[in-house]
This record gives sequence, C-alpha cells and structure tokens, in this order.
Amino acid sequence: MSIPDEKIHPVATGRAAETVAKHQEPQELIFYSGWFCPFVQRAWITLEEKGIPYQYKEVNPYKKEKHFLEINPKGLVPAIEYKGEALYESVVLCEFFEDAYPDHTPRLLPQDPFKRGYARLWIDYISKNIVPTTQRLIQAQDPEKQREALEDSFKALRTFAQQVKGPWFLGEEFSMVDVVLAPWIVRDYIITEHRGFSRDAVGFGWSEYAHRLETRDSVLASQSEHYAEIYGRYLRDEAMSEVAKAIRAGRPLP
Amino acid sequence: MSIPDEKIHPVATGRAAETVAKHQEPQELIFYSGWFCPFVQRAWITLEEKGIPYQYKEVNPYKKEKHFLEINPKGLVPAIEYKGEALYESVVLCEFFEDAYPDHTPRLLPQDPFKRGYARLWIDYISKNIVPTTQRLIQAQDPEKQREALEDSFKALRTFAQQVKGPWFLGEEFSMVDVVLAPWIVRDYIITEHRGFSRDAVGFGWSEYAHRLETRDSVLASQSEHYAEIYGRYLRDEAMSEVAKAIRAGRPLP
Ligand SMILES: N[C@@H](CCC(=O)N[C@@H](CS)C(=O)NCC(=O)O)C(=O)O
Ligand SMILES: N[C@@H](CCC(=O)N[C@@H](CS)C(=O)NCC(=O)O)C(=O)O
Repeated sequence: MSIPDEKIHPVATGRAAETVAKHQEPQELIFYSGWFCPFVQRAWITLEEKGIPYQYKEVNPYKKEKHFLEINPKGLVPAIEYKGEALYESVVLCEFFEDAYPDHTPRLLPQDPFKRGYARLWIDYISKNIVPTTQRLIQAQDPEKQREALEDSFKALRTFAQQVKGPWFLGEEFSMVDVVLAPWIVRDYIITEHRGFSRDAVGFGWSEYAHRLETRDSVLASQSEHYAEIYGRYLRDEAMSEVAKAIRAGRPLP
Repeated sequence: MSIPDEKIHPVATGRAAETVAKHQEPQELIFYSGWFCPFVQRAWITLEEKGIPYQYKEVNPYKKEKHFLEINPKGLVPAIEYKGEALYESVVLCEFFEDAYPDHTPRLLPQDPFKRGYARLWIDYISKNIVPTTQRLIQAQDPEKQREALEDSFKALRTFAQQVKGPWFLGEEFSMVDVVLAPWIVRDYIITEHRGFSRDAVGFGWSEYAHRLETRDSVLASQSEHYAEIYGRYLRDEAMSEVAKAIRAGRPLP
C-alpha cells in the first residue's frame, strides 16, 4: 500500500548532496538518514562538526522497509548501525557521538558537570517546547488556531532567546544546544512565508543568532534545497508521518 | 488565590520521612523535593543509591512561591541548588549526579558509549511512552476512553518488558533506566485499583521485575504512604497541575 508521504524527493540536493557523495565508503558507523528530516540533521551536523567517519545511507522512513525496521522498530530516521548494533533517537545519537569519539573535536558538551546539566536542560526545552509549538503552528488550519499557535511559538522562542549568551547559546563555544536547534532555524522560512512568523519579532537578538546558525559550515553541509515541497502537506495538515499524526491527536511526539 | 492542588499532605511519611530527617544539615547540594512526586523520586533514588550528601527541602510546587520560581521558573519539582546555581528536570538531574559525583557508586550509566546510548534510548522511551500513557489512563473518565488508555498502557509496558534482560533492565547492573521507571511502578496500585490494570497481564516477567524495583532499598527509602490521596483528584480528572492540564489539552508533558 502506498501512503502519500512516501512520494518525497528521493535524495539530498545542494550542499548536502556533495556531503553525501563524500560518505559512500563502508565504515564501522552507518548513518541512516532522510535528507529532509530536521531530527536527522541534528545527528548529521554533529558528525560533520567532529569529522567522524561515517557511511551515509538514504532511507525513506515512510516506506517502513523490513531491513530498516530491524534497525529502528519505530521506523524513524535518524538511526545508526555501529559495529553491527543499532541505535536511534536524534539526541541520543548526538550524545553517543560525543561519548564514542572523545578525540574528535569540538566537544559539544561542556566538560564541567554543572554546565553539561545546564546544556541538557535547554536541549530538553527545545524538544519539549520549540519543536512541538513549531509543528503545531505549521499544521494549524483555522485562522484563530494559527494566531494562537504563532503566539505560542514566539513565547517558546523568546524564553530561549533570552538565555542565548552569544555568539552561541552557551557563549564562546558552539555546543549541542545550538546543534539541536539549528534544523528548525534553517526551516523557519516555511512559517515565515505561510504563518506570519518573523525572526525580528522574536527579539532578543534572535535574527542575529539564527543567522549565525544557518551559516555555520556543518549546518550548510547538511542542507538540501527542497524542504518547501515536503512542508506543503504539513501546511495543509495532510501529512501522514508519525509526527503529523501525534500533533493532530494531541499526543507526545514520537 | 488558593488552587485545589495546594492542599496536599505537607510532608513525607513512612520510610521517606526517616530519610528526610537524616538530610536536614546544610550541604552544597540542596534538593528541592515534593515527597509525592514521581519525577522527584527519580532524582531522590539516585541520591540515595550513590550516598551523595544533600540537604532535603520540601516544596509545595503548586504554591509557586517566589523563592522557588527563582530556582525553577517552570515552578516544578525536582530542582536543585548546587554551589548556589540552580538546575532542574528529573532526567537532567540524574545525569548530573552521575557526572558530578564520579566516585560515588554505583555508576548508573554503563561506561561503554554504545551501552550508554542504549540506556538513554530506553530512558527516553519511558518519558515519551510509559509516563504519558499512564497519566492518560489515570485521567480518563469515559469507560471507552479508559479501555483504550488501558490497552495503550499495556502496549507501552510490553514493549519495554520484552527488553528487560533481568534481573534489571540492562542485566546484572541496576541502572538509570530502572531508576527512571521505578516511581511509576510503586504507584501502579492506583491504576490497579481504579482502572483494571494488572502487572500479571503485562506478561514477560513484569510482576517479578516490578517487585524487584519496589523492594530496592533506595526506592523504599524515598517512599511515602499517602499517594492515593493525591491521585484522587487525578482519577476524577480534577487536578490542576501542569501535567494534568497538559494531558487534558493534548500537549506535551512539561
Ligand atoms: N524523536 C525522533 C523523531 C524522528 C522523526 O520523527 N523522524 C521522521 C522524519 S523527520 C520519520 O522518520 N518519520 C517517519 C514516519 O513518521 O513514519 C528523533 O528525535 O530522532
Ligand atoms: N519534566 C519534569 C516534570 C516535573 C513535574 O511535573 N513535577 C510536578 C510534581 S509531580 C510539579 O512540580 N508540578 C507543579 C505544577 O504542576 O504546578 C521533570 O521530569 O522533572
């Protein structure tokens, strides 16, 4: 049975396509990716930041092919195989790359335990607040609901924006907090074009911070050109992905 | 203005009261706790497992007192002050105790990076699946909704139960995965009495695993006697806590 979300552009484009081309050789780390996926991009940015050797494999997670379900029973990208064992969940993968490749710099979590905790707190904030409010804003259809969702998005971003020490979230050092947020920054033109969002309206230096994120080399290296195409179905609230269904049902994101 | 959730039993009872009594002296780590709170209990079990010195302070998080909002602007327990700085979120705190007190055993995350990742994956599973399904089951009013929620709970638990290596989740070593789940085990008599839940019906050795968890000393040491009283308002779906409101609104848990 063919579900509509299966019909996405099949491969990465632009700078991301160049990166993919450089990562075809077999490695002990296999990276199961969907070029379009913001959760994937978190892991991908981390790999690129650290120069970790990996083999890129494109998966269409909406097809739920048998081999991929053996890697991740949830059927979601990103996922990895590492020395023959599988792991998934974007933040878990970012932490894993940090732990498993200690000699690959930059370290993306502070070495001081308290500062690590502080970083994890704001990573948690992004996952619990920024990601779902953005997703609800995209899927909202009714104008009144859209206005509410836009306000919620501004509110979630402002709380975060006020904590950005600059130039990066934690200060001088680029960190996992920046990584985990960046994919939503490079896609925010979708809500700007269709839902009345504006970076300037967030305030607290948000435009400048967002610009630093979207021009970071690891972010550019994992960047494709066709996001708008993917988001059409979300903007009409017709997408059938697990994320889209969870938002509609008022359930936690997968 | 007095909101109903403010009127909870004010202090820990039973074994937990004894533990509280032992942790009154000033320490560089202040633990802001609500005796009744399962998220608190995660952090508390960790402190007790590792024998970390801490000063216990009881907070009624529903009162949102000014001093406490300065510690955690979300107004949620658990939270800590450590050398004068604040941190919160139960899982973030468990990770922090692991990082900041490396000489306090047992270590609750494996030293092998891949196994750490695997542990974090299932901690994430508990937070995204077991906690919200249980909470929805408790708050469900309509019999049809209750049946659905009960099925969802069994499903979420069975997926997890099948991964328990025994005696603990990861095998021989008690770990953060067990810690993060345990508070929902010691409270499952609420859904057993009121929502038709049964440990045996989960299968896959769930009763035995649950029994091991609820008789672990650190779990007993953080255990009070009045949970049922707290849950009355949840069972009637009258609770006004952030968690209760999130479940009603179909929003992510705070
Ligand atoms: N919590 C997961 C979410 C991953 C996720 O939702 N990935 C989407 C693509 S962006 C996916 O694989 N969807 C397949 C589906 O929904 O069926 C993570 O952080 O890795
Ligand atoms: N995600 C938080 C949840 C903590 C939480 O919800 N705590 C509850 C008590 S069990 C609370 O402080 N509630 C106050 C309120 O809802 O206003 C964590 O894991 O620490």
